[in-house]
Amino acid sequence: MEVEQVLHMNGGLGDSSYANNSLVQGKMIEMTKAIVEDAISKVYRSLGSNSKTLCMAELGCSSGPNTLLVAAEFVKTVYESSRKHGRELPEFQIFLNDLPGNDFNCISQWLMPKFEEEIGNINGGYCFVYGAPGSFYGRLFPSNTLHFVHSSCSLMWLSKVPQGLEMNKGNVYIGSESPVSVSEAYYAQFRTDFQTFLKCRSEEVVVGGTMVLTILGRKTETAASKECCYIWELLALALKQMVHEGVVEEEIVDSFNIPQYTPSPIEVKKEVENEGSFIITHLEASEISWAACSATNNDTANHKISAYNVAKCMRSVAEPLLVQHFGQSIIDQLFVKYQNIIWDRMSKEDTKFINVTISMTKRQE
Amino acid sequence: MEVEQVLHMNGGLGDSSYANNSLVQGKMIEMTKAIVEDAISKVYRSLGSNSKTLCMAELGCSSGPNTLLVAAEFVKTVYESSRKHGRELPEFQIFLNDLPGNDFNCISQWLMPKFEEEIGNINGGYCFVYGAPGSFYGRLFPSNTLHFVHSSCSLMWLSKVPQGLEMNKGNVYIGSESPVSVSEAYYAQFRTDFQTFLKCRSEEVVVGGTMVLTILGRKTETAASKECCYIWELLALALKQMVHEGVVEEEIVDSFNIPQYTPSPIEVKKEVENEGSFIITHLEASEISWAACSATNNDTANHKISAYNVAKCMRSVAEPLLVQHFGQSIIDQLFVKYQNIIWDRMSKEDTKFINVTISMTKRQE
Repeated sequence: MEVEQVLHMNGGLGDSSYANNSLVQGKMIEMTKAIVEDAISKVYRSLGSNSKTLCMAELGCSSGPNTLLVAAEFVKTVYESSRKHGRELPEFQIFLNDLPGNDFNCISQWLMPKFEEEIGNINGGYCFVYGAPGSFYGRLFPSNTLHFVHSSCSLMWLSKVPQGLEMNKGNVYIGSESPVSVSEAYYAQFRTDFQTFLKCRSEEVVVGGTMVLTILGRKTETAASKECCYIWELLALALKQMVHEGVVEEEIVDSFNIPQYTPSPIEVKKEVENEGSFIITHLEASEISWAACSATNNDTANHKISAYNVAKCMRSVAEPLLVQHFGQSIIDQLFVKYQNIIWDRMSKEDTKFINVTISMTKRQE
Repeated sequence: MEVEQVLHMNGGLGDSSYANNSLVQGKMIEMTKAIVEDAISKVYRSLGSNSKTLCMAELGCSSGPNTLLVAAEFVKTVYESSRKHGRELPEFQIFLNDLPGNDFNCISQWLMPKFEEEIGNINGGYCFVYGAPGSFYGRLFPSNTLHFVHSSCSLMWLSKVPQGLEMNKGNVYIGSESPVSVSEAYYAQFRTDFQTFLKCRSEEVVVGGTMVLTILGRKTETAASKECCYIWELLALALKQMVHEGVVEEEIVDSFNIPQYTPSPIEVKKEVENEGSFIITHLEASEISWAACSATNNDTANHKISAYNVAKCMRSVAEPLLVQHFGQSIIDQLFVKYQNIIWDRMSKEDTKFINVTISMTKRQE
């Protein structure tokens, strides 16, 4: 499977679209607001007043209400700062990056007009928004041009499914029963990919430029920890039910693995330090309830609605991958089963996603 | 009608798509190859060898085989030049601009991979391609950042349908019977729009930067000349046949006007000189047969095929505008009639499109 060709959030504005099922990702961005503002202020202060253009990249922007959330924050924060310090407002370039299968038409037709309306009101200057299709595991921008890089809920996606997962039968990610070789294969792929990512960005970001990355991850050092693997184990459970019912062949499930790795803060830190171009200014793990997939979260009476929304959220994220492997025909049925399993779990346990957020500054060479 | 929201070439890769019906536009670009290469070489020579990034904009890029044609030329020409003069190859930024309704997904999924394959072979350096949705009658790029600007078959499109066309009944553009006030209204809108265009680009293009524009136009000074108006008069004829048959209401046809103006070389020159930021280095009018819409042109036995292809080409360009005014239901029938009318004309006359091509350099301030 060519992950680059297949991986993308569900496009458009329909019921299963990422645009309509990305509440929890929006809340994750909301949670890191202070860190992001700090990183933006820092880079703006470090710039000479002769910087005429400020350049930001949103990596893994997808297409939905979160696509331009941090870009708006970027413009507003610099605007306030420039007013406070009596500096001339720079011109902004915002690059929205995602894999080529992302719905860039949705961005240009629906999201950009809204963004321009929002930004137009606070700022007489120019803010130019561009689509930048491509993999962030490769170069996307010229050398020394980016001032601020943001990415949320994207860097846990690997460039490919790791090799050596033949033993991972019955699982779609690292499972509690997976042999150690499986988590090792996943970790090795993460290290390779994240090194490539850091190397590319270190070329592109200016000295003093900042980068805030939020990655779906875990707190503990155990890669097979329930806190990061559970959501996929439940999907594997739904698939196994379908094998049992004779709808899906067992071998097809056995050969399916998600190209994702959910690292710990220590693992993230280690790679940044190994690469060496960035100084870490902040590192934290935070948690957010699965129930945050719904507009009204934490309401225990609404477990069924919450489970429905968690399943829809996961569908908007994973459907293209699943369709490529299993075909379209099983998808509706699979997500009904998945939703029921999640409902059962949510009514009995306090289920959470863990985020690892890291903020860093490009070092003087 | 909000032209910005409605105007775009037919998207996708289907039978009526612009991608499959833009042969003649490709040939027009082919015809200006020497002028384009000259403009690229000129800007590259004028740059200091410390220019690390070369930035090009394709304005009105659409989505099809022509979208990245000149971008490839740009990279190849600079590559040859840098090899010849022993200069380090710069990094390239290519910005593909069109209105937000353009099919940017088609660009990222189909056209960019092909381009990267083509360019990857001749060049070890980096070439970054971005989508830049928006109207070129507004700012699209930061100040002093563009080295080369290209636009072909786009600048005859106006930002809106001119006011004061109430008297233009029975025509969809300036017709041979249109009152003088109609061509005056069209010309006034062209002057306003083209001034805005030049003003915006003069901010964005670096000193010594070059710009090559090819505009569908005419040779004579008569705005109502057959050489630019005929193709639309024949569309008006097809619409009038449908009025006669009771399929379309006369008032609906009377109130439809194309937001386009086909200028003469002298008119183009006048506006560039009035604006004052660019020095004209080349100006010409050239002609291309309507038959060039077919792969095998100039074959008189093939008038029927040629007419079919001319009608399809016009459909891929004008369908969204027509659908917005007349609805989808009349479109198939309209283009069958149009095709028959064109067939009849092509078998009796030597029918041609006229292009005005202007090449210019940004003046020292």
